Formats: sequence, C-alpha cells, structure tokens
Amino acid sequence: MRTTSEKECSLDLNLDVAELTARLVDIPSESGSEKSIADAVEQALRTLPHLTVDRFANNVVARTFLGRAERVVLAGHLDTVPAAANVPSRLDDDGVLWGCGTSDMKSGLAVQLRIAATVTEPDRDLTFVFYEQEEVAAHLNGLGRIADAHPDWLSGDFAVLLEPSNGQVEGGCQGTLRVLLRTAGERAHSARSWMGANAIHAAGPILARLAAYEPRKPVIDGLEYREGLNAVRIEGGVANNVIPDECTVTVNFRYAPDRTEEEALAHVKETFADCGIEEFTVGNLSGAALPGLSHPAAVAFMKAVGGRAMPKFGWTDVSRFAGLGVPAVNYGPGDALFAHRRDEHVETKAIAHCEERLRAWLGQQLAP
Amino acid sequence: MRTTSEKECSLDLNLDVAELTARLVDIPSESGSEKSIADAVEQALRTLPHLTVDRFANNVVARTFLGRAERVVLAGHLDTVPAAANVPSRLDDDGVLWGCGTSDMKSGLAVQLRIAATVTEPDRDLTFVFYEQEEVAAHLNGLGRIADAHPDWLSGDFAVLLEPSNGQVEGGCQGTLRVLLRTAGERAHSARSWMGANAIHAAGPILARLAAYEPRKPVIDGLEYREGLNAVRIEGGVANNVIPDECTVTVNFRYAPDRTEEEALAHVKETFADCGIEEFTVGNLSGAALPGLSHPAAVAFMKAVGGRAMPKFGWTDVSRFAGLGVPAVNYGPGDALFAHRRDEHVETKAIAHCEERLRAWLGQQLAP
Repeated sequence: MRTTSEKECSLDLNLDVAELTARLVDIPSESGSEKSIADAVEQALRTLPHLTVDRFANNVVARTFLGRAERVVLAGHLDTVPAAANVPSRLDDDGVLWGCGTSDMKSGLAVQLRIAATVTEPDRDLTFVFYEQEEVAAHLNGLGRIADAHPDWLSGDFAVLLEPSNGQVEGGCQGTLRVLLRTAGERAHSARSWMGANAIHAAGPILARLAAYEPRKPVIDGLEYREGLNAVRIEGGVANNVIPDECTVTVNFRYAPDRTEEEALAHVKETFADCGIEEFTVGNLSGAALPGLSHPAAVAFMKAVGGRAMPKFGWTDVSRFAGLGVPAVNYGPGDALFAHRRDEHVETKAIAHCEERLRAWLGQQLAP
Repeated sequence: MRTTSEKECSLDLNLDVAELTARLVDIPSESGSEKSIADAVEQALRTLPHLTVDRFANNVVARTFLGRAERVVLAGHLDTVPAAANVPSRLDDDGVLWGCGTSDMKSGLAVQLRIAATVTEPDRDLTFVFYEQEEVAAHLNGLGRIADAHPDWLSGDFAVLLEPSNGQVEGGCQGTLRVLLRTAGERAHSARSWMGANAIHAAGPILARLAAYEPRKPVIDGLEYREGLNAVRIEGGVANNVIPDECTVTVNFRYAPDRTEEEALAHVKETFADCGIEEFTVGNLSGAALPGLSHPAAVAFMKAVGGRAMPKFGWTDVSRFAGLGVPAVNYGPGDALFAHRRDEHVETKAIAHCEERLRAWLGQQLAP
C-alpha cells in the first residue's frame, strides 16, 4: 500500500525543467534525509528503457551503454542545507523560482533528469549521478562513497558537475589544506612571568610570516588561479593570571591545481620552517583539480555552451572526479552567491538555457 | 536554645596557637559560607574586655582604644578555597598540621586571635580584621567592602596581612592591569581571501611587541620588583573556511608600585600605540602598593620579626590598605606554595614563631 506522502514524491519527467525544479524543491532533502528524493529520482529513471539504473545508499546512478567512443558524466547532489522557511517553492511573476535548493542545486538536478529523459540517442555515452550528503562532512559525501565502493560507476572521459555557476563554465578547482601550528611554552603565574615561557608570544613569527606572504596567481589552461595562505583561527591561554604554555594557529592554504597535495603540504611546511613551531598537524587536505579544458570532450563542451571558462577558486566535488582521472568542470544554472540563503532563487530561463546547451552538446534537439 | 553544631563552633582562645589553628580549620569556611566561623570569631572576641568589637556582614573588626601614639592593623581572611577531602585537620608526628586553610590562612587567623586575647596592654593601639570572600571575585572581598562602608574601622599607621609568606616579610605588592586588544578585519570565504582582510594576521605586531618588551626591575625601599607584560589569552576565528574579522589578545601587565594605576594604563596604551589596534578595553585594574618600609612602625616591625624584607610580586589585599593610605606588608606562618592544594599544611612551630615575633613587636611577653 502506498501512502499519500509517498505518492506525492513521484516525479513526472515530462514537466518542463522549471516545473520539475519546483517539484524537486518541494521534496525536502536536508543532508542525511535524502531517502524520499532518492526514491523519487530512482523510480523516475527506472521508467526509462535506455538507461541502466544502480543504487547505493541514497545515491542513484543511471547510464547509457550505446558503445559510443566517449562517455561523459553529469552529476549533482540531492541534499540541501536546512530549509529557512523557504519551502515549498514559489514562482514569481518575473519567472524567478524561490526556495531552498533552487540554486544549489535542484535546478541542476532538473536539467540532469530532463536530459536523461529526453536525450535517448546521445552521440556520447552518458552517466547521470545523483548523490547524497554533499553539504556536510567530507567523509559522508555520496560521490566520495561511490568512488570508494563502485569507482566503475563514475568512469568517463569528462564530467560536468551541475553546481550553481551562473551558467558559466568554471574549470577545475583549487585545493585546500588545513594545518594546525602549535607553539609551546611553560606555564607560570603571570605575577612571576620570568619563571615561564609565553607560547602566545612565540606565535608572533607565524603571524608575521602570514602577513608577509605573497600568494601566487598561476595561469593554467588559460585560467588564472589565485592562491591564499591564511590563519582562520588562533587559540591560546589558560587563565587571566597564567603565562600560557600553548598556542595554536589554524592555517588554511588554498592552492592552485598545478600543485599536488604533497607539494602543497611541503610548501606550507617550508614556509613556516623557521617559525619555532613545536607541532605541525594536518587537519584536512583536499586535492585540487586541473581544469582539463584541452580534452576533446571539454573542447566540444565549451564550444556548445559558449562563453569563456573561469577558474574555480573554491574546492568542489570536481576534485573527486580528478582523483579518478576524469577531467571535470562546474556548469549549472544557479548563482552560488544565493546558495544557502533564505532568499535563494534561480531564474527559470537560466535553467532552460542550461538544459538547451547541454542537449546541443550531446547532439540532440528537443522534439518540438 | 543552642544546637550542638553551634556549640561546636565556639573557640577557646586559651588554646595554644597550633591547637587554635586546628579548631579554625575544622570549621569549614569556603568563600560565601563564612557565617559559622565569623560567629565563632565574634563570640570569642566579645569575651575580651579590652576590645571593642564591630561586625558587618561576615566581617569582624576588634580594636583597642588605649590612646597610643600609633595604631597598627593585623588582618586576615576567614574564607578558604573549597576543601579537597582535607578537612578535618590532621596533626602528624613531626608537628605538621595538614588540611584546607592550614597555610592560607587559618594559622594566620589563629595568631591574630592569640594576640588579641593575650596582648592586653600593647604599646601601640591594635585593630584586628577578620574578613570574608578573599578567594573569589574582587567586588565580594570583605576587606574592600569594609573599606567602602566603614573606612574608619581600617585606619592606622601600618598594617600586617597575615597571608602565608613563609615567615618572611613581603613588602607592598605589584599592581595588575588586564587589557583586551582587538584587531579588526573583514570576513570573506577563505577560497577568495583577497576579498577580505585577516584580523589574526593583524595581531602579529602586538605579539612582536610583547616578545620584544623589556620589563623594568625598579628598586623601591630597597626591594627589587620585577614587572611583566604578557599575553594571557588570544582568540580569533569564525570557521575553518572564513577569513576572520576579529582577533582579541588579552594582555596582563604586572607593574611595580612606583607607578600609579593611571601611569600603568598610559604605559600599556603607549606600548601598543602603533600596532593597528581597533579597540582597547580595560578588563581589570588593581593598584600596586608601596612597601612603606621606612615608616617608623614598619622599621620597628622589621626589627622585631627579623630577616630581610622581600618584594611581593603578586597582587594582594595589602593594596587595599595602600588605597586607604596605610602602608602594609604580608607576614604569615604558612607557605604560599602549598595554598589551594590538597596537601596544604603548615609547621606548627612556624605558627608559634610568628605569634611570638608579633608579641615581641607589640612590647609584651606571654605570661609563663
């Protein structure tokens, strides 16, 4: 027996892409609660005879097996940040759709679903990936978990992540490294400070080094990246009358995709080599992704979608494709500036434009 | 009707000073719970016809009015830090008394009570002060509250605070000033750090100034003081991917008694004048106290107790006497190194020595 609520979660892939976006927004899918939307997506995809559908946890992958020379991947995450009294969706008179996930990234998911339903004879084999838990801790990320458990599901020559990029192609992504730099001292009563050694004072050279650091702006595949080395946190102190024996500076290095993870780490270690650091701890290290814009599938993609590619400064899941040897770009209809906001929205014509450009790339027009 | 518990809190001032210390330790008096011990002290003092006794909250003051040329004050706090399974007291075979408050400072209180009971014809008029809440926030301090409400109760030419000083005279005390130095920046995503301004990096010059600071060691009344300027806390950071817009360094300046509070504050302001500080906030300012060892009553006191006076580096309540224009020293039988510890203890012979020296100073021998 089906309950009404389950029935409500079915998706009609014949809706136009804006209506389909609204339907997806109206199925709440905060990270960790993606079952309903994953069920709806899986059910809809299983009705399409040209696709082979697989499921793993709340991750759904659908593929064509047409024996084409190339395979391309379209991917997007099913989850959103918690809603902020902005669900269900609302379409205004100017053709703008408002609501949680409209931009990040249910409009992108709607494009994927429309392409899946309508491009039945693509000139490249297609893989559609719908995954869970992108907005939360990295180890929960559905794309990462598929990459670990079923890497073959993600294989391909080129991938497009439909994250909001305002309809512009964003190539690759910068890497991010977080390290904790700890200085040490010796506690003493602050009335007899000469009996101790002040670990906060010892952090001075770290801050001076950071302030003087000159980040690179390397050009890769025609895109200018911008690195950055910054303290994002500093903590030290025991009590108001105690000379502190410990101080920790958390540093975030955002690095361009011409460095490997190892090179990025070595660079940061070298930068602070003579700063009197007692302990150097790696908190997080996520690799960069080369834009890969010289790959034939990418060249064809750029030609089809038009515009000029931009570098991606933030870290995104394209890096996970890079880790599997698949060049990847971000290209989606939403505007990242409005993601995670109460006033999140997307222009419906931008969604339609994205769908139309991807269809052109894949060599099919929509039947009139 | 008296209950047994009330009866148990009576004090026999004919006990020897070590036994009396043990009795005082056995009346728990954690800060805020001084009523029982204040009652016992008041009751015992009221039996002495040569003293005039006043009470205010859990503070007891007893004075002689013999028309002497000088008046000296003996003062001590009634409260202790919370007991640590070290009450009741225990006297071991080596004459060491163990328990919470043995050192800080019920041995000192016992000396005060013994002097009060037995020095009936002192050559200086005497004031005995027993006060509450020394171990907690400054605004609760009983000595401070008496100074506000009844300053005349504390008037005198010289004061001895019987805080643990290991039987050595500690002259005056250093002042303490706490300031918060806040730097400002502008938030941005750390992947686009050039859009923001890093407030933690901006704290670098403050730490560099602190590390380079050379504290003074002024000699005052023959005592060498040692100043100190130290960061005791540093805090900054919003999230691991955000350029922080705020960083706060808490600085503690311990200064010698040749500076006034205003001068100490001006010195710290000047020290950091060009460090790019957005906001300078005074967290706490407690004045220093001059040792006053050249005063005739102090000279006589030093002669009677013997030894060489030492500077007091930590801030103590002698500063409250200084604020009333009464030179003051610390002189008590306990060892401050064992204060607030589970293994707190005092040598009973040190208590007896302290009693005997004070009696000699006041011109009376104990009847054999």
